[in-house]
Amino acid sequence: MARGPARQRSRERFEERRWELADIAARVFAERGYHDASISELVKATGLQRGGLYYYISSKQELLVLIHQRFMEPLLKQSYMVLDAGKPPEETMRMLAHVLLGSVDRYRNHVTVFLREWRNIRPAPEWDEIINVRKEYENLILRELQKGNEAGVFFISDEKMTLMSLLGMINYTYQWFDPDGRVSVEDLADQMSSIFLYGITRRDRFEQP
Amino acid sequence: MARGPARQRSRERFEERRWELADIAARVFAERGYHDASISELVKATGLQRGGLYYYISSKQELLVLIHQRFMEPLLKQSYMVLDAGKPPEETMRMLAHVLLGSVDRYRNHVTVFLREWRNIRPAPEWDEIINVRKEYENLILRELQKGNEAGVFFISDEKMTLMSLLGMINYTYQWFDPDGRVSVEDLADQMSSIFLYGITRRDRFEQP
Repeated sequence: MARGPARQRSRERFEERRWELADIAARVFAERGYHDASISELVKATGLQRGGLYYYISSKQELLVLIHQRFMEPLLKQSYMVLDAGKPPEETMRMLAHVLLGSVDRYRNHVTVFLREWRNIRPAPEWDEIINVRKEYENLILRELQKGNEAGVFFISDEKMTLMSLLGMINYTYQWFDPDGRVSVEDLADQMSSIFLYGITRRDRFEQP
Repeated sequence: MARGPARQRSRERFEERRWELADIAARVFAERGYHDASISELVKATGLQRGGLYYYISSKQELLVLIHQRFMEPLLKQSYMVLDAGKPPEETMRMLAHVLLGSVDRYRNHVTVFLREWRNIRPAPEWDEIINVRKEYENLILRELQKGNEAGVFFISDEKMTLMSLLGMINYTYQWFDPDGRVSVEDLADQMSSIFLYGITRRDRFEQP
């Protein structure tokens, strides 16, 4: 009976190691570019042997898929936790914005590589799964916008375009935000949530400073 | 004295041809990736000979610089025209947003290639110039936000972060917006301007639908 847990632990170690490789690959791809980074460079950065790397992943392309999973899994998990808290739509949206910006900040390399290189995943069989995960996340936010609309808190004429405006505002930080700069991630998330929420909330429902 | 105008015309033709090459290269790089697109492919796409291409540009990297100029020059020019109209800050900001989204839409390939590949320009001597042009554009909007703040129309605590929120919202459309889809560029620009302007304008200064 000991074999079950042992196999389980071995499986977990394997998965953990794959996440580590995703992190290393994200850094290498972000700095060197996906095409310029050779397998040899990846092997060197990971401290593995070439065969060792191929034990965990089957191709460079698979690393791109892993890199996407690496930031989307915790993002979805944390976003569902926010929904589970059952706060009013304004508060929920603010918390979702914090979670998203926190994720772009924490996984900046991963987000950079995905947004720059997703065309290179498209031929992979995993592409459909990636699209589904992204749609799941978008729908989660979309439903919250609809909820706020139906409750008469928000006045949104086009929920999909409003969603994409918010995602743009936050996701684009991968291009410019410096977490060691004057403004902290938390402060920026507050500012962006405020602009966005003042922008979509009925004026009798919010207070301005 | 005829040589002057003739030389001028020849110069203009040369510049026009360079813009055309920038457009073709933007398309090829957007589809194939900067690294994957070979000089031979570019030569083929332009219909020139290899030597002909090198008459107009000195390197693949120079094409990236040209691609950036190609969308930034009209963007700056049109934005200055908006400022010259001397409208109130809310209206000016709305018009600036329209100009920017129109530019991202019209030069989608160029914007895509620049935002994906700017790291490949960084070693070039033209990099400083690119940074200056981008700063000039950002400062132009920043001043308008400040003007609105000083006039008591906007309530912005951090103008730089507010600017970057707007740029993110609009620029990120290169990743997702489909101009042949349900929503037109003009409609989207209106929606984004509304969210943003409701988000930063004192509530006694705007009317909601």
